[in-house]
Amino acid sequence: MRDKIKSNIVIIERGFCMKGFAMLGIGKTGWIEKEKPKAGIYDAIVKPIAVAPCTSDIHTVFEGALGDKKDIILGHEGVGEIVEVGSQVKDFKPGDKVVIPAITPDWRTMGSVRGFPQHGREMLDGWKFSNIKDGVFAEYFHVNDADMNLAHLPEGVSIEAGVMLSDMVTTGIHGAELANIQVGDTVVIIGIGPVGLMAIVGAKLRGAGRIIAVGSRPALIDAAKYYGASEIVNYKEAPVMDQIMEITNNQGVDRVIVAGADSNILKTAVKIVKPGGVISNINYFGEGDTIPIPRLDWGSGMAHKKIVGGLTPGGRDRMERLLELVKYKRIEPERLITHKFHGLEKVEDALMLMKDKQEDLIKPIVYIE
Amino acid sequence: MRDKIKSNIVIIERGFCMKGFAMLGIGKTGWIEKEKPKAGIYDAIVKPIAVAPCTSDIHTVFEGALGDKKDIILGHEGVGEIVEVGSQVKDFKPGDKVVIPAITPDWRTMGSVRGFPQHGREMLDGWKFSNIKDGVFAEYFHVNDADMNLAHLPEGVSIEAGVMLSDMVTTGIHGAELANIQVGDTVVIIGIGPVGLMAIVGAKLRGAGRIIAVGSRPALIDAAKYYGASEIVNYKEAPVMDQIMEITNNQGVDRVIVAGADSNILKTAVKIVKPGGVISNINYFGEGDTIPIPRLDWGSGMAHKKIVGGLTPGGRDRMERLLELVKYKRIEPERLITHKFHGLEKVEDALMLMKDKQEDLIKPIVYIE
Amino acid sequence: MRDKIKSNIVIIERGFCMKGFAMLGIGKTGWIEKEKPKAGIYDAIVKPIAVAPCTSDIHTVFEGALGDKKDIILGHEGVGEIVEVGSQVKDFKPGDKVVIPAITPDWRTMGSVRGFPQHGREMLDGWKFSNIKDGVFAEYFHVNDADMNLAHLPEGVSIEAGVMLSDMVTTGIHGAELANIQVGDTVVIIGIGPVGLMAIVGAKLRGAGRIIAVGSRPALIDAAKYYGASEIVNYKEAPVMDQIMEITNNQGVDRVIVAGADSNILKTAVKIVKPGGVISNINYFGEGDTIPIPRLDWGSGMAHKKIVGGLTPGGRDRMERLLELVKYKRIEPERLITHKFHGLEKVEDALMLMKDKQEDLIKPIVYIE
Amino acid sequence: MRDKIKSNIVIIERGFCMKGFAMLGIGKTGWIEKEKPKAGIYDAIVKPIAVAPCTSDIHTVFEGALGDKKDIILGHEGVGEIVEVGSQVKDFKPGDKVVIPAITPDWRTMGSVRGFPQHGREMLDGWKFSNIKDGVFAEYFHVNDADMNLAHLPEGVSIEAGVMLSDMVTTGIHGAELANIQVGDTVVIIGIGPVGLMAIVGAKLRGAGRIIAVGSRPALIDAAKYYGASEIVNYKEAPVMDQIMEITNNQGVDRVIVAGADSNILKTAVKIVKPGGVISNINYFGEGDTIPIPRLDWGSGMAHKKIVGGLTPGGRDRMERLLELVKYKRIEPERLITHKFHGLEKVEDALMLMKDKQEDLIKPIVYIE
Repeated sequence: MRDKIKSNIVIIERGFCMKGFAMLGIGKTGWIEKEKPKAGIYDAIVKPIAVAPCTSDIHTVFEGALGDKKDIILGHEGVGEIVEVGSQVKDFKPGDKVVIPAITPDWRTMGSVRGFPQHGREMLDGWKFSNIKDGVFAEYFHVNDADMNLAHLPEGVSIEAGVMLSDMVTTGIHGAELANIQVGDTVVIIGIGPVGLMAIVGAKLRGAGRIIAVGSRPALIDAAKYYGASEIVNYKEAPVMDQIMEITNNQGVDRVIVAGADSNILKTAVKIVKPGGVISNINYFGEGDTIPIPRLDWGSGMAHKKIVGGLTPGGRDRMERLLELVKYKRIEPERLITHKFHGLEKVEDALMLMKDKQEDLIKPIVYIE
Repeated sequence: MRDKIKSNIVIIERGFCMKGFAMLGIGKTGWIEKEKPKAGIYDAIVKPIAVAPCTSDIHTVFEGALGDKKDIILGHEGVGEIVEVGSQVKDFKPGDKVVIPAITPDWRTMGSVRGFPQHGREMLDGWKFSNIKDGVFAEYFHVNDADMNLAHLPEGVSIEAGVMLSDMVTTGIHGAELANIQVGDTVVIIGIGPVGLMAIVGAKLRGAGRIIAVGSRPALIDAAKYYGASEIVNYKEAPVMDQIMEITNNQGVDRVIVAGADSNILKTAVKIVKPGGVISNINYFGEGDTIPIPRLDWGSGMAHKKIVGGLTPGGRDRMERLLELVKYKRIEPERLITHKFHGLEKVEDALMLMKDKQEDLIKPIVYIE
Repeated sequence: MRDKIKSNIVIIERGFCMKGFAMLGIGKTGWIEKEKPKAGIYDAIVKPIAVAPCTSDIHTVFEGALGDKKDIILGHEGVGEIVEVGSQVKDFKPGDKVVIPAITPDWRTMGSVRGFPQHGREMLDGWKFSNIKDGVFAEYFHVNDADMNLAHLPEGVSIEAGVMLSDMVTTGIHGAELANIQVGDTVVIIGIGPVGLMAIVGAKLRGAGRIIAVGSRPALIDAAKYYGASEIVNYKEAPVMDQIMEITNNQGVDRVIVAGADSNILKTAVKIVKPGGVISNINYFGEGDTIPIPRLDWGSGMAHKKIVGGLTPGGRDRMERLLELVKYKRIEPERLITHKFHGLEKVEDALMLMKDKQEDLIKPIVYIE
Repeated sequence: MRDKIKSNIVIIERGFCMKGFAMLGIGKTGWIEKEKPKAGIYDAIVKPIAVAPCTSDIHTVFEGALGDKKDIILGHEGVGEIVEVGSQVKDFKPGDKVVIPAITPDWRTMGSVRGFPQHGREMLDGWKFSNIKDGVFAEYFHVNDADMNLAHLPEGVSIEAGVMLSDMVTTGIHGAELANIQVGDTVVIIGIGPVGLMAIVGAKLRGAGRIIAVGSRPALIDAAKYYGASEIVNYKEAPVMDQIMEITNNQGVDRVIVAGADSNILKTAVKIVKPGGVISNINYFGEGDTIPIPRLDWGSGMAHKKIVGGLTPGGRDRMERLLELVKYKRIEPERLITHKFHGLEKVEDALMLMKDKQEDLIKPIVYIE
């Protein structure tokens, strides 16, 4: 692999081609060569400094969650260095170190005007990397509308933190935002992978009191407590709804954030949330035709138990806000990283790690040279 | 029947008993005698001036939607005259004509503090008449916390309008409120029974532009147009989702209000609503274990298609606000009434009318005396 | 004047120059020649079909509200025909009839991302015509970002309605939006010029019950009643606050929309609004160093009487939403127009009419044949 | 003093009288005897365990902020033990230790229904202690509607924390709530007395990034940093607006919380806040007829710079939410307490300490016996 990349670099020096780690079809990955992308007048070309694989890459490749995509380069989390900008880019220049958000919307869309740039012209079209276009697991990648979508990595913010902001932090916090948490609320977080952990951070950051995290792996439980969970419900021990109703004296909870679950999860979530409460979903449901709401627990439609789910916001403003949180020590995303790799060719190993999920894994990072 | 009531009046004159039309068990109704209710210190006893049966009475009796209740007097819509008030009631006195909201919450509850008096101590407990206690189809009925739950019927507001406010108007408008309609939104109303018609009024009242009503009965279609529907989709002609996607050029709509449907309705509603849109439910789902959300149309959980449903607010403030709408000619609820009866004993006929739903029915009213 | 314009047309045919009615300096207006504007790749050049002068043009010229601007063409309300589009414009082409919003934001700004495109890079910079660049009182004018800022004039919507949408309708309705009106609220509208009249429409459109309009000119009072005012308070008869407290039995009102007033108006508005109420300002305060809040009536800072004011939203989505309101007969803005002129050269007369405000004036329109 | 109290205790044993520290008139304080209060059916009588004086007691007595009140017992912050409850009180009994909120609303009011129990029947009427009725600086005090207004002091929450919740914590956090802080916002807190410090906590708790605190006393600056301020602006060094515009590169800030200032403060606050930003006031303005808004910085009324101020919520639900924050280590209010006194008679010394504000003072507490 290294050799192939090395020989590839020669090609790149000729200015035409680059290497990337791609989905070749459902269940198949591999290294491919593609033409180095070009920047439109508002765009930038970036080379990665560090990247991270995401569970959604796994969904994309091995579950075909986005369909049978061919030869699309994977990856949507990273920090990079700008190598080229279009003529109309004002705030960025080659050499700048930047955070790359997973979501890079088109801002001149009706979706954006209405407050949902994630769905600018159509549902989810703000998610481009490894979905609509090639992702960041490459020697170079293209960023649309650089002035609106990139954020400078400031002094004093680590590369590791930056990479975690791309998707994990922003998605987790979005779970808390959608949940519309009020000061002192009791919040349940279902799923404590890296996104769920950041949802715990988000819940704390929005003023939750009691935070109950649902998970089972010891490494994740430790991290959940570190990030602010006040107690853990282990779904392997008894049904989650029973445990939560018991520890809340049958009162239920104010908010539920779903950060990892199968399509039956609303049966639990709707049961445990109080009337007037909110169920906020940031999970990507990969299978099942439907996600059923339990009728009676939903008050036969009259309980004011709101159900909402959405793709994280992205773009520059979002990343800059999260960078402020890091800079002023409100959040510490680096603690998510449990495994480190060096070299672009290692994104393959890092991705497989996400697939196999060993005991002590939370999140890997890959430093590009 | 008349005789029985007449003989009963004798008993009432002795101050002990009264007559009411009750659910005797699932599928069974009949007239029963009960002790005339007494007012607690904050309460009132009211005799009905006019009442109306509701589809939910049908659900309660014939579908057992609230369980196998025995000997509970039905009815939760009406205008009445106060005959007795408790010692702490300040704003009402015997002889006052009042609007009775279907929902009469306990206001000293945590649910109320948190903005959901409908669910004061537990889910739906603000709905008392014909659910937790005897309803208004009786010679007398009890109203908890009169100062907080009753509203004076003002000069210039008809009895008919008042009766329609109890449930139909407030529920319909709540559909529009939950939908969080923005100026110029395209709104679909599914179901154009009296509540759906008032949801059309609600949508108009909150600034909707295009209002698409889904129904089929000619009498209801006429009323829907009268109340502000800009066009009608007849579900008997083709699948609703196909028709709506076609007439919106595949753009879908901003908001959907579900005012009558079976438990499969979210398959249509989630499909037709745009990302960032809202589905607002005011329907009472009477059957089915679950109400399934279609996964892909819900963006696999990431489309920001919010789903919310809830029991109407009630109480005095709500009724007074609606009375302002009538008084200042913003709404005309009288147009809902298609059938008129006279005499308490006719509530039985009126209820059966709701059950059988003949062609030209929208809503009956029964004048007492 | 006519001759000069005619001779001018010759010049335009040579493709270089055009005529416009401009502010020459504070207190001075006149016709000037300027180079015909050119479209950037996302822009359009439009020739007016009909335009209208605005009170803010009067503020601009005769009060110097925006500073001592030299040779800037006036006007920001109009319907026009596209004559040229940039290479990246997708949804518009020469010959299209379009509504021109007064506010044409830059959409690729942080202000826009945060929900305030009116203040994209700095305060009020979304207001371009007759403020930052030449306005619409010219043979041609330039529209930035046509796909995001123009709206097609649909079949069935009159040119007159279209011209009123540019500023009057959107500003008036924004007053109601900022006021966060709830169903059944009592709303006071202070000032019933064309914007105030559209604020009445806005209040009605958001569900207000009682609408009290403050004004004095008979023509405006008639229009206020037509548009939905339930009663009129004439400020010439007694202090507004006394009259309103009296007619509300000293309860005050839920919302106040300030649509015309001097800088002392908060003394009245804060007094009459209930605790928890909102004062929404859409007035452009032209003088006074400060706008004082009365301390005691504001509960010494603790009354939850919210004060908010803002420039109307603009752009395509906004105009399309308002066009829906016209199309579906929710609003009738044509009723605002009391005076009609023909010929571009008549914008001068129309403007002076706004300055002198004769008895029967609401709003003039100028058709550019 | 001690003797007088001692002799007084004899009287109390006879069941009639008690001692309290009162405002006797503007500028005058002293100990008075009053009849021990009696509980209505929903009320409780409480004896203090620990109390604290508040700057607003100083405003009340020495500035006559609430008028020339005679013989009203001061104090509205405390933890106590219930000695008597009315017949309808369900959740509390004699012997229970409880947190007393400064604000104890009437919950059966239209203000409460509309979301503002602080202003139940009229402006500020939810603030009863030391305002409408006798306060907590007494041997016994009366609490209206115990089930709705008191909160049990849970295991593991200190008395000191409990006392700070009554007013300081809830008011400070309300400042952050009114400011509607979004994740990553830059927030300025003006005034870093105990309420301002808790506003810092509130800003952090709602997700602020950069928090700029304006103050000058070293003891308060230390506390501000401890509680989360990222930097301090000392108003003695240069005008606050100049300093803040400089450190924000003339961008201004997203939110301003006013927690201590004179009536000119909006000149600074409106200047430094961005368009679309919020100014949230929790300061009690004690003097000046008006609080002036600077016209030009407010965009002449069009900048969307929202101004809102309000009395903290109170009651049981609020206190329970804050107790959750303490219990789950989200906040540490004890750090506010710098001075401790023992004995009811020491409330006088503690109050004078608030008046004279020595260098190292943040907040005193008085333990009763």
